[in-house]
Amino acid sequence: MDTENLLKQVAFIKEIDKLKYIQRKTKLFNSDRHENDAEHSWHLAMMTLVLAEHSNKPIDVLKVLKMVLIHDVVEIDAGDTFIYDSTKSHTNTEEELIAAKRIFGLLPIEQAEEFITIWKEFEDGTTDEAKFAKSMDRLEPLLQNASNHGGTWAEFNVSYETVYDKKKIIKNGSTSIWNYAENLLNQSVDQGILKKKID
Amino acid sequence: MDTENLLKQVAFIKEIDKLKYIQRKTKLFNSDRHENDAEHSWHLAMMTLVLAEHSNKPIDVLKVLKMVLIHDVVEIDAGDTFIYDSTKSHTNTEEELIAAKRIFGLLPIEQAEEFITIWKEFEDGTTDEAKFAKSMDRLEPLLQNASNHGGTWAEFNVSYETVYDKKKIIKNGSTSIWNYAENLLNQSVDQGILKKKID
Repeated sequence: MDTENLLKQVAFIKEIDKLKYIQRKTKLFNSDRHENDAEHSWHLAMMTLVLAEHSNKPIDVLKVLKMVLIHDVVEIDAGDTFIYDSTKSHTNTEEELIAAKRIFGLLPIEQAEEFITIWKEFEDGTTDEAKFAKSMDRLEPLLQNASNHGGTWAEFNVSYETVYDKKKIIKNGSTSIWNYAENLLNQSVDQGILKKKID
Repeated sequence: MDTENLLKQVAFIKEIDKLKYIQRKTKLFNSDRHENDAEHSWHLAMMTLVLAEHSNKPIDVLKVLKMVLIHDVVEIDAGDTFIYDSTKSHTNTEEELIAAKRIFGLLPIEQAEEFITIWKEFEDGTTDEAKFAKSMDRLEPLLQNASNHGGTWAEFNVSYETVYDKKKIIKNGSTSIWNYAENLLNQSVDQGILKKKID
């Protein structure tokens, strides 16, 4: 049983290496180099460790770490969906669910079920842990874009109002982080790297 | 205090982005593309989640995750040290300690102290958590090299005996993972991608 589990786990460990090839739209800090999903997931895990004290509610940090570490694994099959792509919803598409079942399904059954459950909990975004994990997922690209002359906001001509609407869920995880983020958005407008809609 | 901490934490979060530029000698699975330290750290965290059940001793998984997520952050200043480089010791050099103090020192004092303590515990390798974390750190490049026609073993002409000597500490963290790893090393010799010393 021990060996059987281990062989399945190694197969999974090899498969998820592919996450390092999934390129995001956002770029590294002060950089022209695109970030990949593995780097992004590592960064969210570090942010979780460092920022957990700002959560609105007490959270199980281990569970949040699991969420942010695995949240993009489905993109190995389903691909990265750009948050400001108006033609495709990012939330829990059928394609992502099939991907979750295939990729986590490489693991021993109990682990596969645990990972799929945690991934769904993240996607649903209703528990305290999922809310905080989503705050991290929204904050990282905001920090990156603000450091990159507007980054994807400028590149894809995304308005302040649209960005604000996507970012405001940070507040559900942490009011103090949202206060910081809201300030950063306003500063970005002042600096001309994020544009308000023209009425 | 809340805001003061947050500003320090954001400065740290930006600084550690540099880990994505630290290139390792090893390459991704079945690939010619070098891995970077952020990708490597994410992969060790995933391996920890998946393989924790094989630990010889009960372990605090959250602590092991902290170890593997931060273990290479010092390389932002100190650079990557190749495990088979005979001219430079990888273990806890003065340069790495100075790096730990500078980089973790960007954080609020209590967090800085916690991270430096955890990093030192990993480097010392004596607690059950550090032993398991080191097993993960040794296993990943072994799996990669075995998938890459010998990878760095072949590229730098490293003998089976030298590899075996570096890898055997996997056993301190997990006997069952070591059994798997030892088999993989022997298979690599049989396949001609890892060479025994010529007497």
